[in-house]
Amino acid sequence: MSGPLLRKLRAGIVGGGRGAFIGSVHRIASQLDGEAVIVAGALSSDPQNARESAAEWYLPRSYDSFETMASAEAAREDGIDFVIVATPNHLHFPVAKAFLDAGIHVMCDKPLAYARAQAEELASIASRGSTLLGLTHNYTGYPLVREARARVKAGEIGQLRKVLVEYNQDWLMEPLELGGQKQAAWRTDPARAGKSCCVGDIGTHAAQLLEFISGQRIQAVCAELSTFVAGRALDDDANMLLRLDGGARGTLVCSQVACGEENALAIRLYGSKGGLEWRQQEPNTLIFKPPGAAPWQILRTGRGETGMAAAAATRLPSGHPEGYLEAFAVLYRNFIADVRRKLAGVPTLGDYPTAEDGVRGLRFIDAAVASSASGAVWTPV
Amino acid sequence: MSGPLLRKLRAGIVGGGRGAFIGSVHRIASQLDGEAVIVAGALSSDPQNARESAAEWYLPRSYDSFETMASAEAAREDGIDFVIVATPNHLHFPVAKAFLDAGIHVMCDKPLAYARAQAEELASIASRGSTLLGLTHNYTGYPLVREARARVKAGEIGQLRKVLVEYNQDWLMEPLELGGQKQAAWRTDPARAGKSCCVGDIGTHAAQLLEFISGQRIQAVCAELSTFVAGRALDDDANMLLRLDGGARGTLVCSQVACGEENALAIRLYGSKGGLEWRQQEPNTLIFKPPGAAPWQILRTGRGETGMAAAAATRLPSGHPEGYLEAFAVLYRNFIADVRRKLAGVPTLGDYPTAEDGVRGLRFIDAAVASSASGAVWTPV
Amino acid sequence: MSGPLLRKLRAGIVGGGRGAFIGSVHRIASQLDGEAVIVAGALSSDPQNARESAAEWYLPRSYDSFETMASAEAAREDGIDFVIVATPNHLHFPVAKAFLDAGIHVMCDKPLAYARAQAEELASIASRGSTLLGLTHNYTGYPLVREARARVKAGEIGQLRKVLVEYNQDWLMEPLELGGQKQAAWRTDPARAGKSCCVGDIGTHAAQLLEFISGQRIQAVCAELSTFVAGRALDDDANMLLRLDGGARGTLVCSQVACGEENALAIRLYGSKGGLEWRQQEPNTLIFKPPGAAPWQILRTGRGETGMAAAAATRLPSGHPEGYLEAFAVLYRNFIADVRRKLAGVPTLGDYPTAEDGVRGLRFIDAAVASSASGAVWTPV
Amino acid sequence: MSGPLLRKLRAGIVGGGRGAFIGSVHRIASQLDGEAVIVAGALSSDPQNARESAAEWYLPRSYDSFETMASAEAAREDGIDFVIVATPNHLHFPVAKAFLDAGIHVMCDKPLAYARAQAEELASIASRGSTLLGLTHNYTGYPLVREARARVKAGEIGQLRKVLVEYNQDWLMEPLELGGQKQAAWRTDPARAGKSCCVGDIGTHAAQLLEFISGQRIQAVCAELSTFVAGRALDDDANMLLRLDGGARGTLVCSQVACGEENALAIRLYGSKGGLEWRQQEPNTLIFKPPGAAPWQILRTGRGETGMAAAAATRLPSGHPEGYLEAFAVLYRNFIADVRRKLAGVPTLGDYPTAEDGVRGLRFIDAAVASSASGAVWTPV
Repeated sequence: MSGPLLRKLRAGIVGGGRGAFIGSVHRIASQLDGEAVIVAGALSSDPQNARESAAEWYLPRSYDSFETMASAEAAREDGIDFVIVATPNHLHFPVAKAFLDAGIHVMCDKPLAYARAQAEELASIASRGSTLLGLTHNYTGYPLVREARARVKAGEIGQLRKVLVEYNQDWLMEPLELGGQKQAAWRTDPARAGKSCCVGDIGTHAAQLLEFISGQRIQAVCAELSTFVAGRALDDDANMLLRLDGGARGTLVCSQVACGEENALAIRLYGSKGGLEWRQQEPNTLIFKPPGAAPWQILRTGRGETGMAAAAATRLPSGHPEGYLEAFAVLYRNFIADVRRKLAGVPTLGDYPTAEDGVRGLRFIDAAVASSASGAVWTPV
Repeated sequence: MSGPLLRKLRAGIVGGGRGAFIGSVHRIASQLDGEAVIVAGALSSDPQNARESAAEWYLPRSYDSFETMASAEAAREDGIDFVIVATPNHLHFPVAKAFLDAGIHVMCDKPLAYARAQAEELASIASRGSTLLGLTHNYTGYPLVREARARVKAGEIGQLRKVLVEYNQDWLMEPLELGGQKQAAWRTDPARAGKSCCVGDIGTHAAQLLEFISGQRIQAVCAELSTFVAGRALDDDANMLLRLDGGARGTLVCSQVACGEENALAIRLYGSKGGLEWRQQEPNTLIFKPPGAAPWQILRTGRGETGMAAAAATRLPSGHPEGYLEAFAVLYRNFIADVRRKLAGVPTLGDYPTAEDGVRGLRFIDAAVASSASGAVWTPV
Repeated sequence: MSGPLLRKLRAGIVGGGRGAFIGSVHRIASQLDGEAVIVAGALSSDPQNARESAAEWYLPRSYDSFETMASAEAAREDGIDFVIVATPNHLHFPVAKAFLDAGIHVMCDKPLAYARAQAEELASIASRGSTLLGLTHNYTGYPLVREARARVKAGEIGQLRKVLVEYNQDWLMEPLELGGQKQAAWRTDPARAGKSCCVGDIGTHAAQLLEFISGQRIQAVCAELSTFVAGRALDDDANMLLRLDGGARGTLVCSQVACGEENALAIRLYGSKGGLEWRQQEPNTLIFKPPGAAPWQILRTGRGETGMAAAAATRLPSGHPEGYLEAFAVLYRNFIADVRRKLAGVPTLGDYPTAEDGVRGLRFIDAAVASSASGAVWTPV
Repeated sequence: MSGPLLRKLRAGIVGGGRGAFIGSVHRIASQLDGEAVIVAGALSSDPQNARESAAEWYLPRSYDSFETMASAEAAREDGIDFVIVATPNHLHFPVAKAFLDAGIHVMCDKPLAYARAQAEELASIASRGSTLLGLTHNYTGYPLVREARARVKAGEIGQLRKVLVEYNQDWLMEPLELGGQKQAAWRTDPARAGKSCCVGDIGTHAAQLLEFISGQRIQAVCAELSTFVAGRALDDDANMLLRLDGGARGTLVCSQVACGEENALAIRLYGSKGGLEWRQQEPNTLIFKPPGAAPWQILRTGRGETGMAAAAATRLPSGHPEGYLEAFAVLYRNFIADVRRKLAGVPTLGDYPTAEDGVRGLRFIDAAVASSASGAVWTPV
């Protein structure tokens, strides 16, 4: 795991200062396996918040702007090896581009950009191969999500027929944005979030998870987006029919007004030879449903019947629950290993979401919004 | 409960002979509360099977045809008070009509008829008021389904926003009909099942459950029906978007090829003030999801916080699980009580599904099939 | 199933009149499969209640006393084939004895008697073989309890090592008996309940279930009985260590003051080659736990991997939940089949709890009470 | 949280080298919140393993022995602020003592020592107050364990009556120690593990969790320890009755031969006004069981109804599962905060298990072993 360089890698972070839940997530996840240490940051667009946040994290170097940070770190001999982008959506593009242009590898929060053209430009830069661009579609880091993917790929559920994926929350069921809640404000603001709130924020996670596990692409969607909270400019709920390019059919539902739901991402896949079910809130259980009225099997993280893909993402013996941070950290571990490979001049593996997933995400948002605007007509992704 | 007549009512049954699972269900459910006894039957179109089945059930009177039975029973002083229709779909109409015409009350399996015009004719007959026509949409007999309805009606979840209803099975995931399995044969045969297999058989249950609990009607569907098993003439899977007439949006999914699923009927409702979740396979639990990050409440059959509607459908103290037969028997109990009221000349209550639900079911099938045939366009129900 | 007699059997019942929950349970369960009909009763020691209860059940014959009933029914040509004893504990003995002496088969509620000597006397009568004596340890009627027993017997969990059985409720957590609640009054009264309340009422169910599934006998107990509600004369809670005669060790806990618990009977068995877990409140699921870190298997009522023993106790396809009444009715079905065999002069099968279980139950109560009285010392059962 | 010192604290570790699962746990947990960094280690008694393990963790300083490490680090200006003891049980005492004597704070794995006298000596040293001694009874770090304790303390379940605590595993159900599995070898070896295997390893966790949540002490145990795997020198299973000093009664069961169980630590508490249930394998759910047949409440990590104690141990919004490592890290976070207080000369808070818990643990082991040896007699703890 440690690679050819006998030191921890140096990381920087943009965004994620005090009050931003996702900042701490990136901080903990990127350092969890002891393969990297964050040494620099531009933690906020507010200079004082940036400095104080950096001090709280004991960062040696704090910057007032990401542009300064990119050039300064690129110039240092002990500059950062990679940067974490943890800003609101509309800044993903300029920040990621600045660091990629400076030759610094980038791990970016999702969605990859505010709009599809930006995502495609970042993908284009990444495709040149000199710098790595990872995307924290973190749910793919769970061991049992990887187990599910491996089983589908190995043909254990046969020909995929039906998929049911959902991601329901309730945190926007009241107009929080009117009360100044910061995250609610930018997520419901078209100028900062993009074309969609609910589909963009969590629908993309569901879509990406489905494509990750199934190995198929969503070919077309027939979607209805809704806004249930009066006065909100973007959708807070969506229901859609799906067609996958391998012939499967299904639904994707997401909501931020589903009263009582926390973070209920769940996926069910049914094939000609088996079924699979996984729920993010109890992530250490994967149900395998064999055909022929055979009993369901309860697969567990770290348990014998799971395979290499899951094992590589597992740190503890079974029964010691691993959670959201550990899954997030799996992406970082794999990304950091690739940065080490890059530094060592050996081929990378890319075992984490990349710009390609990011472009898919923006295309998915565009298709869903367009389908809904036309009254729910099939729209290719 | 016992009503004005100091005797058990006399019931007859058409269909449900040996090998028909649903026949025993009707037999047990109709007699479970000791309010009726089955004394006559035309249990099969095969005379020998009819006679032998009747003997196995210790029935005093066995008939070779339902027509004979209807006239003979109507003529007897001790003739049956009501008849149970437990035949395949295409016979519901002629059988029900024969008994209604003979002045005998009818409890009919669902769907009410093979096609919508038949259902409407039966509804028209029933609307005259001389004979009762009940429909065994049995899932509405569960105590906690009634609790859910009562809570929605009382405003406990506020304005309904999102509904997710599903009914997944796997019993048709292989082409059983080719191997001569009797029920599979008629269910997948347009001549006997009607326009749809999966939507007609189980989609209607899901739709009726949703309308029952929500108190709203499905205004329109945007549906895609699929046939995954090669050579099958009817659908074995469906996904649809829903619009309810009170403004809620949602999805209805059903499948008979969902590998590993038994009888997974489930419903979730989300309103502006709360959520509800119920799953048929663990029917004694209803989850109430309050707003404001308050804890989920686990409501249980027979437990203190459930109300009158649930209590009226409950026979045992909490912790003594009641199941499918008990729920089925609730409909019979209420129907029989209405037959007693009819016999006593007092107004009936109608606390069970009726011809109106039956017509709704056929309209739902028609709309889903039409929407899918047009490539998933919104179609009014 | 129907046997040699081409009629439903005739049953009578003693006790179980209005207000007695268990009376309705016996009524429904004994008639559920259509193999018997209750035609006579002495439903209450209060004559008016007896008569009115009988009328509510549409019974042709109502008696003021069980003695009269036993002699009158024995004298009738169309007298009852068997009687159900559903009285409080202290009456089990005289009632059962009266009917056995009159040559009428008996199905008795548990515990078999008020005290061990009575139970042994009934067992002695039953051992003569002319009349059948069944005992409604109803939990053994669940299909998956029978599946568990079959698997243990077939060696699927290997040598049994550890057993954990529990039965927790909360219905006596307040002094209901002071408020005149009828069942609470007799259950906490040594004169009517016997030596123990909690152990006698529910501990015996747990013990019998353990012996039924494991095929081993509880050799000795080390018990501590407690009375948590002030002023109560009998125990309302117990904890005990167990030694089984096949070498297994374990615990049995029961409580009637376990706040929030309904009827939480559960059993876990661990052997050298597998484990099993079953919970009464979700009785259609049995977990099989294989060795070698293989995944748990979720066995379900009516599903393919369960065997003949379970199938014989199952009425519905999987996914159609069967509950408490159906399990209860399995005992009746098997008992009635034996009554038919007796009437036909063929050997009986005895596939239901009998007087032997009843004697075991009283010995278990005696041992637990004695062990606790001595400060928790190992006491043979 | 960061305290008066504007730097991460420096930590060292003894034991935990390659192949030792618990070493990585300590490494990740101690650094998870970014408040400390491990800079030195004596990772193995095998010098090469020690060096290579240190290199894999990028440790600046590796030592061949803990004695050398203690003196060298104490002498450095930039020496470690605290040490982590992650060795087998028999080394806890000498290692902890060496560092405490050198004035270095100690976080020790549990049990605190091989035998009670050693634990008492360490407690005596710690009681002098110059150096801190923490103990990683990690399950107390879960947010909902803290919520449970807070609710008990606030009187929300009233007077505690019954407790059921269990910790079942299966990892020793075969004689792994014969095959050279390292951890199995020392855990089943009296010379290295102490008087007990199962009770010492996991029974102590269960006991400590019970005392932590209930706020009561286990006054006496009536225990039966078993050895089911032939040839094993220590117990691999135990069942015991408990008396708590506040009057509650209950059972503690633990097993390392419970086929199919992973790490099934669970606790249920029943009081005069409520009940609580928590299961380690789904640690983000705590069930509160109100009296009066009110519905169970599903409390969740990070959700509104949980209080300050839980919130202080929570890092993520609800629905983002936190696991074993996060709970472990809570103890480190609180311990490190106390080390900062110590360095700043302000009073410490001690919000983590300490030497006192360690002594309790050894007394509990002694009592269980003695009780069992006497044939299960009540033995004071």
